[in-house]
Amino acid sequence: MPHITLPDGLPGITGPFAFRPETARPMRALAEILLRGPNTLSSADREIIATYTSSQNDCHFCQTSHGAAAAHHLGGASELAGNFALIAAIKRDFESAPISAKLKSLLNIAGHVQQGGKHVTAEDIACAHNQGATDTEIHDTVLIAAAFCMYNRYVDGLATWAPQEQEAYIPMGARMAHEGYVSAPVQDSAAHPEAVTV
Amino acid sequence: MPHITLPDGLPGITGPFAFRPETARPMRALAEILLRGPNTLSSADREIIATYTSSQNDCHFCQTSHGAAAAHHLGGASELAGNFALIAAIKRDFESAPISAKLKSLLNIAGHVQQGGKHVTAEDIACAHNQGATDTEIHDTVLIAAAFCMYNRYVDGLATWAPQEQEAYIPMGARMAHEGYVSAPVQDSAAHPEAVTV
Repeated sequence: MPHITLPDGLPGITGPFAFRPETARPMRALAEILLRGPNTLSSADREIIATYTSSQNDCHFCQTSHGAAAAHHLGGASELAGNFALIAAIKRDFESAPISAKLKSLLNIAGHVQQGGKHVTAEDIACAHNQGATDTEIHDTVLIAAAFCMYNRYVDGLATWAPQEQEAYIPMGARMAHEGYVSAPVQDSAAHPEAVTV
Repeated sequence: MPHITLPDGLPGITGPFAFRPETARPMRALAEILLRGPNTLSSADREIIATYTSSQNDCHFCQTSHGAAAAHHLGGASELAGNFALIAAIKRDFESAPISAKLKSLLNIAGHVQQGGKHVTAEDIACAHNQGATDTEIHDTVLIAAAFCMYNRYVDGLATWAPQEQEAYIPMGARMAHEGYVSAPVQDSAAHPEAVTV
């Protein structure tokens, strides 16, 4: 049961978003820019950074929904099972996962941001630069990880309700990937709250 | 030296804000709503929650600048020294500081959010309710603490530069308290970067 009285039936972050639309607006806008805005990093890579940070924070709703968004960005319906397996492998041990050395260097930075800003070292940054990461890509990685330290604490600090099983997150992830975080009108968001999740 | 090349001479969060205005916009809007928007909690109390969270995250720039903003909200120039002493006492041990039992119950929640969302207990919430806190005040406390877990990681994860001495933060805190987080035009922000800090 949530710590405060939230609207019924809205999973995860969508409950407090509906409770306090004034704060939801900039939080949704930030997610949209970070995860779907113009960027030299793909949306798949950015959703993977969000998913990994959320898994390090042990936030079930965020890691499962953003993992599903990443899986949808990585390919169509026929590839979903393989994409979910890749996301699981990255969360388990990204160093041994079949992803680029550059993405590994960014996940290393994200993991240090999750522990605390001062855990990021000059060596972490040099490693990412050596793998071809730009200053803007490093900036965005730090901010995605920092922002999910906020979203995760918001979701779990209010003890929000969320489905346990991964299946529930497949259509949610599709909407997050393809419709985004700010586009759903309020009326529609009641019927499809997953469209406006973060 | 910052981990990435940031504009010169802008302290703390104002460097990455100038580096990436697209993400700065919603981050500033969120701070404005949380700390200066219409609320049954005073801006002083909300800045104290931000300051305490930032001190728990050991973020020098955020705890000193928001501590100065709180001191300015609490009174005029003649009271500043006493107000700074109160902020220092709260950071050291809020339970023994001369503040209301309600604010203590909210700082207890903020401290648990800082550790991680799941550290917030039903007992923490019941204690705040018993001290007269509303659901919206509890919501905003959780979100202020969560948001400063983002701002603090952003500032320190990029190894931004910031003045060490508290004196430098006195005019900055006055601008944060009285002009806010979104009002300064871009041109002015180069001359007075402290006006648009978070």
